[in-house]
Amino acid sequence: MEQQDVTTVGAEGRREAEQGAPVVAVVLAAGAGLRFDPDNPKQLVALDGKPIVGWSIDAFEHNARVSDIIVVVNAHVRGAVEQLITDATYTKVRAVIDGGAERADSTSAALETLAAAGVPGDAKVLIHDSVRPFVTQTQIDGCIDALDEFDAATVACPSTDTILLTEDLGDRETVRSVPERRHAYRAQTPQAFRFSTIHEAYDLASDDPDFRPTDDTRVVVDYLPDTPVAIVGGSPLNMKVTTKDDMPFAAVIADEITKAAAKRHVHTMFTQALS
Amino acid sequence: MEQQDVTTVGAEGRREAEQGAPVVAVVLAAGAGLRFDPDNPKQLVALDGKPIVGWSIDAFEHNARVSDIIVVVNAHVRGAVEQLITDATYTKVRAVIDGGAERADSTSAALETLAAAGVPGDAKVLIHDSVRPFVTQTQIDGCIDALDEFDAATVACPSTDTILLTEDLGDRETVRSVPERRHAYRAQTPQAFRFSTIHEAYDLASDDPDFRPTDDTRVVVDYLPDTPVAIVGGSPLNMKVTTKDDMPFAAVIADEITKAAAKRHVHTMFTQALS
Repeated sequence: MEQQDVTTVGAEGRREAEQGAPVVAVVLAAGAGLRFDPDNPKQLVALDGKPIVGWSIDAFEHNARVSDIIVVVNAHVRGAVEQLITDATYTKVRAVIDGGAERADSTSAALETLAAAGVPGDAKVLIHDSVRPFVTQTQIDGCIDALDEFDAATVACPSTDTILLTEDLGDRETVRSVPERRHAYRAQTPQAFRFSTIHEAYDLASDDPDFRPTDDTRVVVDYLPDTPVAIVGGSPLNMKVTTKDDMPFAAVIADEITKAAAKRHVHTMFTQALS
Repeated sequence: MEQQDVTTVGAEGRREAEQGAPVVAVVLAAGAGLRFDPDNPKQLVALDGKPIVGWSIDAFEHNARVSDIIVVVNAHVRGAVEQLITDATYTKVRAVIDGGAERADSTSAALETLAAAGVPGDAKVLIHDSVRPFVTQTQIDGCIDALDEFDAATVACPSTDTILLTEDLGDRETVRSVPERRHAYRAQTPQAFRFSTIHEAYDLASDDPDFRPTDDTRVVVDYLPDTPVAIVGGSPLNMKVTTKDDMPFAAVIADEITKAAAKRHVHTMFTQALS
């Protein structure tokens, strides 16, 4: 799992994946998790016996159309993530690279790695927050499909809450405007881009000293405003584990998924035994 | 529990509540719940043995500063809600009134009821969605306090997801803009107003045929743009039960709250026994 492995990105997996263009998943696991527990990084917390980052890598490993996976880590979690990857015998993980202090630094690091590896501009790049462990195959496929029509796409789900846009008024946050609820979506991940599109957007953004985006879609919307970004249907179950308060919910979802998988397994065994 | 009881709104409870101004809670329980199960209205579904609307009414009944409660229902749930109110022997529920097809119609009905009952313009009106059963005393108090400084306030919590504002592009929803995440809040309830403020905003809005707001704050922001609306700190636990997918999460929260209450009860018994 050395950083020089990246030269294989887009090569090995390309044959069995999309015709022509590699499909690269970037799993961001470099977050410091200051809102969770800095001593117990949330991406390593186990759900039904598997670390959260493992759930995320699994989702892309098991999608036949994904050719390559890059995992972005920090020094604190690198050892555990490398061990996890070794134990799970993933076949698509090409590199574990170091991210940066901010989310955008980690995406930048991944994009530079892909550029150095010679990944073509039409490669489909799916950037995923490792702390969204319950991303579905339908959502991953939806991203890959959307890139046939658009150069950028993101999983998102309609907000069931009305969204308020606020401003500071002295020591109080007050409401500035209230957008139509039917046009307010909660961004999730993966966020997917043709490689040339996201690379160009980050290049343009890097000149801006105030550039601290909380997601990659925003970089395209702000710096390549003529590039439409398609919405791919998300779900509240594709939740982000942000604080410890999220863990009971994540545990409920993990249990349901594990139970459903066990049921499918039993069904398959019966079907085979009876055939 | 007849509609003519409303003439007592703001009278009985006023003495023990805020000096001068009554504090009226309006609990909206008229939703048809089409995204849930039309045959099993979500406001009547039990959590730890108590219907969701009961959790909501309880929160205001148990706040010493709330003087009066109005519950807004539809024909389908009226019987069950009236039975619940009778069984629980609430002392502050002054009326159970009929709402309308849309959320705004239900708020309007409540405001007209308050006007007919002669509620003063400086009354503090807290409008709450009954399907947010876990509203806390701190949030209710925060609304009542905020109205000393502002004419409008709403419970809201910062969005942990980046919010995308979208537009239709052919058959696809695409991203139009991405507001700064730190200024994107998810509106919750209660939403609180001086009675004269919310009444005037609804009066102004009623001339607009396209008026279909999904929350009451928006009515003030759009029709009384010079009236700042303060943010009162909410929490992800003050969730809205919208679809059946929300029920496992609601069950987790209800269990935690019930367990915490039992623990406090035992602690109190021990303390009393030992004193």
